[in-house]
Amino acid sequence: MTNGEKPSLEVCLSPALLHLYNTAGSVVVIIDIFRATSTITAALHNGAECVIPVASVAECIALGNSIPGSITAGERDGKIAEGLQYGNSPLEYPASFVKDKTLVLTTTNGTRLLHMVQGASVIVIGSFLNLQAICDFLTAQNKNVLLGCASWKDKFNLEDTLFAGAVIDAVQESFTINCDSARAAKHLYAQSGGNFIDFLKDSSHYRRLSAYGLEHDMAYCATPNLHPVVPYLNGREIIAWKGL
Amino acid sequence: MTNGEKPSLEVCLSPALLHLYNTAGSVVVIIDIFRATSTITAALHNGAECVIPVASVAECIALGNSIPGSITAGERDGKIAEGLQYGNSPLEYPASFVKDKTLVLTTTNGTRLLHMVQGASVIVIGSFLNLQAICDFLTAQNKNVLLGCASWKDKFNLEDTLFAGAVIDAVQESFTINCDSARAAKHLYAQSGGNFIDFLKDSSHYRRLSAYGLEHDMAYCATPNLHPVVPYLNGREIIAWKGL
Repeated sequence: MTNGEKPSLEVCLSPALLHLYNTAGSVVVIIDIFRATSTITAALHNGAECVIPVASVAECIALGNSIPGSITAGERDGKIAEGLQYGNSPLEYPASFVKDKTLVLTTTNGTRLLHMVQGASVIVIGSFLNLQAICDFLTAQNKNVLLGCASWKDKFNLEDTLFAGAVIDAVQESFTINCDSARAAKHLYAQSGGNFIDFLKDSSHYRRLSAYGLEHDMAYCATPNLHPVVPYLNGREIIAWKGL
Repeated sequence: MTNGEKPSLEVCLSPALLHLYNTAGSVVVIIDIFRATSTITAALHNGAECVIPVASVAECIALGNSIPGSITAGERDGKIAEGLQYGNSPLEYPASFVKDKTLVLTTTNGTRLLHMVQGASVIVIGSFLNLQAICDFLTAQNKNVLLGCASWKDKFNLEDTLFAGAVIDAVQESFTINCDSARAAKHLYAQSGGNFIDFLKDSSHYRRLSAYGLEHDMAYCATPNLHPVVPYLNGREIIAWKGL
């Protein structure tokens, strides 16, 4: 950015709308609150060497086999997928288990969006667990920002957009924002009154995961700043940003 | 619907997401507040025989030539498009001018969405100008409903979604709603406090049209219930529902 002009900030509400945004040279934040980006954030803050996101269970198994000591993880329909070792909960990856290990993680919505982004300056991983760290990173970068909601099978979801609103509320002074999706996200954040999990209890995803008994998991995912780390994509690996 | 089961209500935030929804047998409400669906509502309530929506200026001119006494109308970049007679403002179509006439109207976002919908039971035209009439119609039909926001070149917009929220607020008791887009729309409606035009003054579209001096137009478009009519698509024509 030149001469005091503020960089732009926009919000993409679904991977199906990503083509409407120019991500070249931008910082792109991937948001998949329930639960991929929350789990990646927790694992890296707890000392995992890296997380490798993959789209399919088969790919996860194959890659896990090729990396000695790695953990293969992922769920389908709320259960650990057949052939994998662990699930998709941030609570499964404490430091005592995950430190210095490689986590090969298969997710659907988050991984897909991550692999769709083209030409970004850097792709980072956002969740309530690292909210402030992401905000500090975005402000320091001074580049255009796209907050990318992974959504649910391309359908808008409340939790990813609420997180986008929380980010905007914190960083808006540093950006030029002329994007109705960003305005809506900010309004949703205002409506939540900061009570994220209560606000989300009526969401589609909360209802879906509640059927699997994952309320405690979701409450954890909606807790701000438990894991101050900025995960970013480096080749095929997601690792912790060291500049913080 | 059978045995007291309530029909569903969903919101589609952009034409680019329409493929995610099953519109077969549903009532689909096309929403393009600034200004296509507002203008269609006003013209029909003021006695126009029908409105024929077309995608291109060339098509508008050709169709206008083939229908004696018809009015050709449409704007591009805030001005009456070359070769057409009138613009895209609801205020241009009072009864003294439009009564018993055919209005051939070219719009971009609204017309496109209208023509994309497949297999609906009926496609109706919604705007603040006919808010209550649309709500009464939806409740009486007792069918699944999709509120379809025309958006702006596929990008989410605030005004169409706000209108969806106003509809939901009024009809929610009659429907099963498990759709995060609908929840977000309802939250936006709550945030507006019913002051629609003030809420929209910070939107992208308001800013864009303000540059053309259209503030008065937009205030009109955000006024509820000035034109209680239910326009619906009948073949290629939009006409007023007579059952009301």
